[in-house]
This record gives sequence, C-alpha cells and structure tokens, in this order.
Amino acid sequence: MTPPDLLARIRVVLCRPSHPGNIGAAARAMKTMGLHRLVLVSPKRFPDEEADTRATGAIDVLQNALVVACLPEALAGTVLSLGLSARARELGPAPRGPREAVDALLAAAREGDVALVFGNETVGLTNDELQHCSAQVTIPTNPAFSSLNLGAAVQVLCYECRMAAMAGENPLQPARERASDLQLASHDEIEGLHAHLETVMTASGFFNPRQPGRLLPKLRRLFGKAQLEKDEINILRGILAATQQNTGHGKR
Amino acid sequence: MTPPDLLARIRVVLCRPSHPGNIGAAARAMKTMGLHRLVLVSPKRFPDEEADTRATGAIDVLQNALVVACLPEALAGTVLSLGLSARARELGPAPRGPREAVDALLAAAREGDVALVFGNETVGLTNDELQHCSAQVTIPTNPAFSSLNLGAAVQVLCYECRMAAMAGENPLQPARERASDLQLASHDEIEGLHAHLETVMTASGFFNPRQPGRLLPKLRRLFGKAQLEKDEINILRGILAATQQNTGHGKR
Repeated sequence: MTPPDLLARIRVVLCRPSHPGNIGAAARAMKTMGLHRLVLVSPKRFPDEEADTRATGAIDVLQNALVVACLPEALAGTVLSLGLSARARELGPAPRGPREAVDALLAAAREGDVALVFGNETVGLTNDELQHCSAQVTIPTNPAFSSLNLGAAVQVLCYECRMAAMAGENPLQPARERASDLQLASHDEIEGLHAHLETVMTASGFFNPRQPGRLLPKLRRLFGKAQLEKDEINILRGILAATQQNTGHGKR
Repeated sequence: MTPPDLLARIRVVLCRPSHPGNIGAAARAMKTMGLHRLVLVSPKRFPDEEADTRATGAIDVLQNALVVACLPEALAGTVLSLGLSARARELGPAPRGPREAVDALLAAAREGDVALVFGNETVGLTNDELQHCSAQVTIPTNPAFSSLNLGAAVQVLCYECRMAAMAGENPLQPARERASDLQLASHDEIEGLHAHLETVMTASGFFNPRQPGRLLPKLRRLFGKAQLEKDEINILRGILAATQQNTGHGKR
C-alpha cells in the first residue's frame, strides 16, 4: 500500500466538539498531512461559518465529514482506534506515547480502517468513550501547562501518521529531486582542493610543512562535514587562485 | 543537562508575523512543550488582545517575548538555527526533515542557545532570512495541500523538540555528547568569518561587491553544511589573516 492509501484509512473522530473553529483547524491539520476522513460525534455547532474560515483550503474535508450520534457508530468497522488523553485512567487502556502508538495504528491500517479519537475541548474523552478505544495515546507535555489546543493535538498526531506512513521513504520528496542536480565533488577534486590549499597556506607562512601539527587533518574534517559539491570546489579554488595571483605565487 | 534546561535554550523566532492570533497560538504551542523564549522580528501588531486570547494560559510567554528589528539580532549568540521552509531554495541550506533537524538542534543546545525560525504567514522566510539560518527544516506535508498554519508548524517542531529532549532520559537512548573540545561556533563568530572572507576576496579581486552575483550565499550554504566549530573558525580566519599580511592588506 502506498502512503496515501494508508493515510486514507485513518478516520479522525472528534467527540462533542464545542467550538466550530476547532473543527475547521482539525480539518486543515488533517489535510496538510494527507488525511481526509473526518467524523464528528454530536458536534455542538456544525456546519458553521467559523469552521469554514479556519479550515481555509480544507473545506472539502468539512463537506465530506460524517456526523454521527455516538462514538461506537464512529468506530464501526475499524480494526484499531487510539483515544487521546492527557492522563492515565484507572480502567482505560494503558497509555502509550505518540510515536509508538501511531506505529501500531499504521501497521493496523494495512488490515483495515483505523481511528484517532479526540475528546471535547474542556473535558477530554469520558472514561466510557476511552474504553471504546483499543489503546490510549498521550502526547508528552509540559507538566506545568498541558493545555494542548484541540487543533494542535490533531496536528501532532496527523503529523506522526504521515511520518509513519512515509517511513522507509524520504518524507521530503522535493529535497531528493533537488539533491540530484547538485553533483558531489569527486575524490580527485577534493584532493586537488587540499593540495591547492596547502600550497597557498605554505606560501603565506600559515602552514609550515616541517611542523605540520594537526592543521591538514582538521581541514579535511571541516570540508568533509560540508560534503562539497563540484561547484563549491570551483569557488574555493577560485578564491585560492585569486590570492595567488595577487601575491605573485600564481603559476601563470 | 535536564530536558527542561535544554528546552530553555531554544528560542522560537517569528519573522514579521501578520496575525496576532498566530503569535498567541505559537506561545501556547511552545509552553505546552516546555519552551518559553519567544522572539518576534518586526511583528505587525504586538502586543495585541487577540494574541493574549489565543495564548490562554501562556500569557507569560507573550509578556516575556523579545521584540527585535531584524533576524540577525534575534539570532545573536546562537550556536545553531533552523529555518522552517516548505520548499528547497536553490542557494539556501540543504533541507532536512524535522526529526533529524531537531536532533541536531538539541545536540547543539548542550553547547549554547539555538533557534527555530519561522517566516511570515503568507510568504514564509525570505531567501535572505533563510541564509542567516544554519540549516533548513521542512515539515513533510501533503503535496496537494501544504498550507500548514503558523501555530500548527510551531506546535509540530516544539513537539519534536520535547520528544528529542526527553529521549536523553531514556537509558536506551543515551544523549549523544560531543567531545568536550568540539564547541560549535556562535552565530557572531560565523558572521565574523563571512565578513573576513568577503574582505579578502574583495582585495584579491575574486569578489566584486558591485556585481556580487550569488557568491556570498553559496559560501554561506557551504559553511552552513559544515556546522563549523570554534576551532575551525580560528583556522579559517588564520588562513585569511596570513594571506592579508602577505599581500599588505593586513590591518597591522
């Protein structure tokens, strides 16, 4: 299954959301990460203009949202569901961190539909709602201020879903394409740079070949970290050559 | 260093934010993840009631926010900075995914202040702003809808910071400690190198300030990739100074 196919199997379920703005923010957060299936359990106000405004370009997610009366209805047909809660419940499923929990969610998505379940902004998920979920996920927060906004919580978990779905692939596709037109310098080109640098440093008196110390290995390490490209070798050698002509040490 | 100490070294820098609501959302996102240092570069409206409303319990982050005129001022004294951008720039630092980039950020935070840098809501970071950052971070998004809200982007990266900071607490993932003699160069030291290099290149005729072309951004990118250490800055400036004395362009 491709990452988009996997992400298409994830339902985002918001239980009794009070503020339509948060529904819109959740829709936008979902769509940026490639999730599209929003399910609303007894929303206080929906549809609503404020939700549309906050969704910006993710209006389609709102338009296709499913409104249901209770959580079991929202979870019908799923093979795994994660309920978000800030605190462990005595009788609920054991809490897991987002990365571990989402890995399990994506593994299950290969088998069928799965769900991320979020509670009401003020009270979170009830114990009863949490017990309908297969597992609890807790986002680690500052113990002194754990008040994560609903849209922000949806964003973090959808982001983890995308990262997990893309695992094994480069999540930054454009970056890879870009890398291909930047040609790394060859071994010989890098050796040529170091020889040139050594000549210039010797001429200027900065480097004494009879007391070399650790200067050359340090420069190799420095330029090694940069993973020089062909173009960069040309620039550095151009700087060196200009210095040589200026001081009369140039070969021509 | 404890995770709270590490997180306390991270500045969140918002460049030219247009909407005070987003400043408030960013403050809330930061505080939930244990980050507290907000720096605003030329905000359109600040302080503002809308920012306070969206910050809810994170008003203290807004009250302690530093307002500055330009990005270099915001980055003064940092040892590493990550600029968020959705797209790779021809000459900007090479983009990395959030997890990898934030790991590097937290490693650098052991040595000094670091920064996460975010652009304006509509236009993002300018090329010039991005070139002042040591590296570019790109949040992987749905190619068909990459419109991540500013507050949501801050939330995702602060979340990754918290996850990375807490990873050091897990005995299975010991925090990577750098050799004690390898200290990353500060932002000011790197700026000093670039200024010195420009002087030498101008004197040698390799660089013409009236026709600058793309030489300086290319050099920023090159040395950005190397993540220069203090010792390396000293070597490079030593090479440059020796050249200057040799050609009579030295200051002494």
